[in-house]
This record gives sequence, structure tokens and C-alpha cells, in this order.
Amino acid sequence: MKNVTIRALAKELNLSVSTISKALRDSYEISEDTKRRVLELAARLNYMPNPYASSLRGKQSRNIGVVIPEVADSFFSLAINGIESVVKEQGYHVLIYLTHERFANEESILHEFQGGRVDGVLMSVSRETVSGRHIQDLMAKEVPVVFFDRVLDDVEADKIVTDDFESGYNATKHLIGNGCTHIAYLTISENLSITTQRMEGYLKALSDHGIRSSKNDIVPCSADASFNYRQVKKMLTQKKRPDGIVASVEKLANPVYMACRELSLSIPQDVKVVCFSNLEIATILHPSLSTITQPAFEIGRTAATVLLRALDKKHTKPAMQQVIIPSTLIARESSKR
Amino acid sequence: MKNVTIRALAKELNLSVSTISKALRDSYEISEDTKRRVLELAARLNYMPNPYASSLRGKQSRNIGVVIPEVADSFFSLAINGIESVVKEQGYHVLIYLTHERFANEESILHEFQGGRVDGVLMSVSRETVSGRHIQDLMAKEVPVVFFDRVLDDVEADKIVTDDFESGYNATKHLIGNGCTHIAYLTISENLSITTQRMEGYLKALSDHGIRSSKNDIVPCSADASFNYRQVKKMLTQKKRPDGIVASVEKLANPVYMACRELSLSIPQDVKVVCFSNLEIATILHPSLSTITQPAFEIGRTAATVLLRALDKKHTKPAMQQVIIPSTLIARESSKR
Repeated sequence: MKNVTIRALAKELNLSVSTISKALRDSYEISEDTKRRVLELAARLNYMPNPYASSLRGKQSRNIGVVIPEVADSFFSLAINGIESVVKEQGYHVLIYLTHERFANEESILHEFQGGRVDGVLMSVSRETVSGRHIQDLMAKEVPVVFFDRVLDDVEADKIVTDDFESGYNATKHLIGNGCTHIAYLTISENLSITTQRMEGYLKALSDHGIRSSKNDIVPCSADASFNYRQVKKMLTQKKRPDGIVASVEKLANPVYMACRELSLSIPQDVKVVCFSNLEIATILHPSLSTITQPAFEIGRTAATVLLRALDKKHTKPAMQQVIIPSTLIARESSKR
Repeated sequence: MKNVTIRALAKELNLSVSTISKALRDSYEISEDTKRRVLELAARLNYMPNPYASSLRGKQSRNIGVVIPEVADSFFSLAINGIESVVKEQGYHVLIYLTHERFANEESILHEFQGGRVDGVLMSVSRETVSGRHIQDLMAKEVPVVFFDRVLDDVEADKIVTDDFESGYNATKHLIGNGCTHIAYLTISENLSITTQRMEGYLKALSDHGIRSSKNDIVPCSADASFNYRQVKKMLTQKKRPDGIVASVEKLANPVYMACRELSLSIPQDVKVVCFSNLEIATILHPSLSTITQPAFEIGRTAATVLLRALDKKHTKPAMQQVIIPSTLIARESSKR
């Protein structure tokens, strides 16, 4: 059985399509008796309105696009839960789009959004993204965009982030406090707001504690697990081996642990580790992993709330805001003195 | 700048809306010269077709709905990557919907799909789902549904699964082979196809090896982490404590490890553990976790391929199929003799 159309309802009741349509929208132009007859028939035939026909009329798709690099990361899966917790009760649908860390993917997704597929966008940019032209083009079409976590500095938009600089600082200070004198920083991008800010915090903590920083201690990693493993191993086999590591994203915990095991280095005796991660399972790693835990759910929820407000007051344009929700350092065995 | 409409293009070129529309669709009715003029103006004004207008014409939304219980589980995040790897190159969009393991959510999502929001659905049912009426209603509207991983036996549809019975059997046999004589099974649902089949495999392995099974050894868990922790702890403090555990889903690894630590029980000396999990991080747990690793990416990719085929040949209705892609037992320290 194909979906019943308004046309079919009209034919059955010998009324015009426009009358049926108005009756279904509870228009004052239609008598109560007619409305009752239309609704009864609609219920009997299991009529469902076509959401895209309503979209054309109302110029709203009721879709929110969420553009993120991946879902295989507990930060993003928790943030999605936070977004959904707000958006659904307002009758919006969440469409999740993955860029797989590629700028070209991000660009083509946003370009397609220009056609009206979504009413607003929540996004965390890819590790390759340096220019915000594709985002500005979309915003110029009056599609509001709210950044969360990974933002672009040169795009004027609402931004919901955590305190990345302070977190990088605190992680490094914690390692110094526990005896480290030579700390490496693992990064996945030279451009990404979160990793550069975390790195600036790392550098500031070093200089505040009289430790000279070296370019060699900043180790570029990527989205490729085996490349990361090789990078970490190379770092740990150099002559002057670091005695501490700040890993700037969750997926870097695995290569650090694997490389230490391969090289028979003990954590935390030989190398102390702090990783940015929201993995529940961090506590049962061997040894348990000290983490900077981000308020992922809250970031998602706040970003969605700000976007819904922008959609609601489309024509008053509330002032752009930056919301910073702090992260928490959870010290466990991997960074013990 | 609002999106440019066909109407605006028509006005600018002093042509009818229908001519513009046909020119944009490269209709043979329109002269090459007119087409060129229309396309030039469309490009200059950055015109984007409204996807929902095209949907109404073509009666296709080009959206695939993916309905899953959660994303904070590596099985589902990998399966989504598998789905995306196929669907995107065919020009479809992936809309991810989370039920949070609630039947009521699942029912309302599928009900709304009846309006034409998606062309086809890939789904893994919630742990509460026992009846398939909501799915049959959607399929009656000629929206094809393909199950992956968590299927409903009483709904006739394509099903892409792994060998759950054999995996439950192999996990249990592995523990018996390593010396266990009293093995518990942790389940998150009495109804879910995957957990009942895994449990039947567990029961068959016990009986094949002359071990009597007991209802007390089948421990119901839920979506609530602290409830699961209490359930596991209760099981491990009973008089006749099990010496082996088969945990039927990924999220159960954490409560098992936490409860053992709390009770000062050593894994694998006191209790041996095998868990269904796709976590990359299983290798760096303490001790490293023996897993039944599912072909999550392949399951997603295959399900999407079958759905696209159904969408392509909507009117020929290919025969329903069940595809079984086997899982792998990866023995690590947690189940060592």
C-alpha cells in the first residue's frame, strides 16, 4: 500500500485538495463538521503528511545537520547524545554527517546544505580545515552555524568549547609536579583550534616551570593508527627519551600504550602519560589512564540550545557568543609519581 | 542573502518558471542557447536546487534512515562507517536516529518515516523491542527495511547478522578449554535476537561438555551502568562463585573489570572473561581482554548494499535474504588458563 495522498482524500470525500489541506491544518476557514470527516478518513486510511511538502510550504526542513569528523570517538558519541537530548523535544531531526577528517568532504556537505536540506548546522571541523569560506557561504544563505569543540577562529559564529589552553596547561603541570622534566606533546593537526590551544597551554606550562621546549618534542600524528604507532615508537627510541607524554586526543592512547609495551617501557615508571579522553574504560586500562575529561554531553547540549535559539529568533539575530565549559583532569595510575 | 529561487531566475531572464526548471534538468524541449543562459545565471547567482522540491517531483528523499540504539558503542560506530562507505557514493544521505534502547522512541521514529522522510531504513532494534508491527507498517508503505545485527525474527526482511550462536558457543568452549567449570552469562535483554542466540550457543556448549546450566548463572543487565555493576558484584559474591564469564555486549566489560577490582578478584586467575566487543583498546586493558570481535564494518557495508539494491529494483522485489558474516574469537590474557 503506497502512502495515501491528499488528492486521494479529496477524491474520496468529493472535496477540493485545498479544503482537505486546510482541514488537516485546522484552518478557521473550514467547518468543524468537514474537519471531522477529513480527520476520520485520514485516520482510517493511515494518511501521513509528506514532510518535504510541509518543508516547502513552511520553508523549514525541521532537520539539524551535525557535521563531525567521526563517531568512533567517545567525545563525539557523547556530544551527539547531548545534542539529541535537546533537539528532539523541539520536533527537530538530527542528521549526522561524517567528514572522516577530510576537508573536501566537509566542503561538499556544506555546499549541499545550501539547498535547504537542513535548517541549521552544528559542526566540529576536520583536521584538514584551515579556511572557513564554505561555512561563510552557508551562513550567507541564512543557515545558522554553531561550532562545538573544534572551531575556526576566523569565522564569526557561536562557539561552544572547553578550556583547551587551561587543560593543556594543567595536564603538563600535573606531569611536572609528578617529576617529569622532558615532556612530549602528541598532536593530530597543526591547524585545529583544539590541538593548537592545548599545545599553547603545554608550552606555557613548560616555560612557567623553567623547562625549555623543543620542536622535536612536538610529534605530529594523524587519523591513521599505524602511522601514529610508528611516530610514538620513533619518539620513544630517540637518544633523549621523554619521561612524560601529553596526548591531545583520545585515539592517541592506544599507540602510546602499544609502543611502550613493545619497547618494554613501564608506564608510569619510565614514561608518565596524560591523554585527552572521555573513554569510560580509561579506568580499567593497564595502568589506568590519567585523562583530561571533556564535558562532551554538556557541550553538545549547549551547542544545540544555542542553535535552536538562533532558529527561533532568526530575524532578531542574537549576538554571537563563545561559551567555555571547563574540562576535568582525572589523575590515575598512568601519571603517578 | 536568501537562497535564489527558480522564480528569481525566471524573472531575471524573462522566461517562465517551467522553462527554467526544464533547462536546469537538461530537457530536450529547451534550446541549447536558453540552457546556456539559464546555467550561466544560476552559476552567477549561486542557485542551489531545493532538495525537497526535487523529492516531491521524484518521490525520493535520497535519505537513508539508520535506526540504532546508541553510538557510544564501537560496533555501531564502525557499522556506520561501513554504511557510509557504500551509501555516499550513490548520492544518498545518511540520517542517524538513536532509540536509546527504548521501544517507544523506535516506534515514533518509524511512524514518522511513513511520511516519506527516508527512502529506506537500516535498523538494529532496541533491547525493549518484541513486536515488529511498527516495522511492518512502514514496509507496507513500500519503504524497504534491512535489519543488521539486532533483528526481529517475526518480520520478513533482509537480515545481515553475524554468527551469534556459534560465537556464544565458541566463547564458552574456549573458557571450558581453559579450565572453567562454572560459567556465567551476562545478557542485556531477554528478547534481543543477538543475546538470546549467543545465550543458546553458551547453553549448548555447556551441555556438549557435560556442564549443567543453572538459571542463576544467567545475569540480566541493562542500559544502566551502575545497575550492571551491582548485578555483576552480586553474582561474584554469591556462595558458588562462577570461574568464567561470557559478557554478551561491549558495555559489560567495564562493570566486570570494576567489580573484580572492588572484590579483589584477579582476572584470569579467579575469573576468566570473554566479552563481545570491537574496542580497539581491548588489547591495552588490564589484563588485555579476550573478545568476540564482530565484523562491524562489513555488516554495515553489506546491509547498505542490500538496501540500495532493494531501492534500485523497487518493483521487482528481490528475494529476502539472510547474510551471516562470522565473528572472530581473539584470545588474550583475560581468559588465559
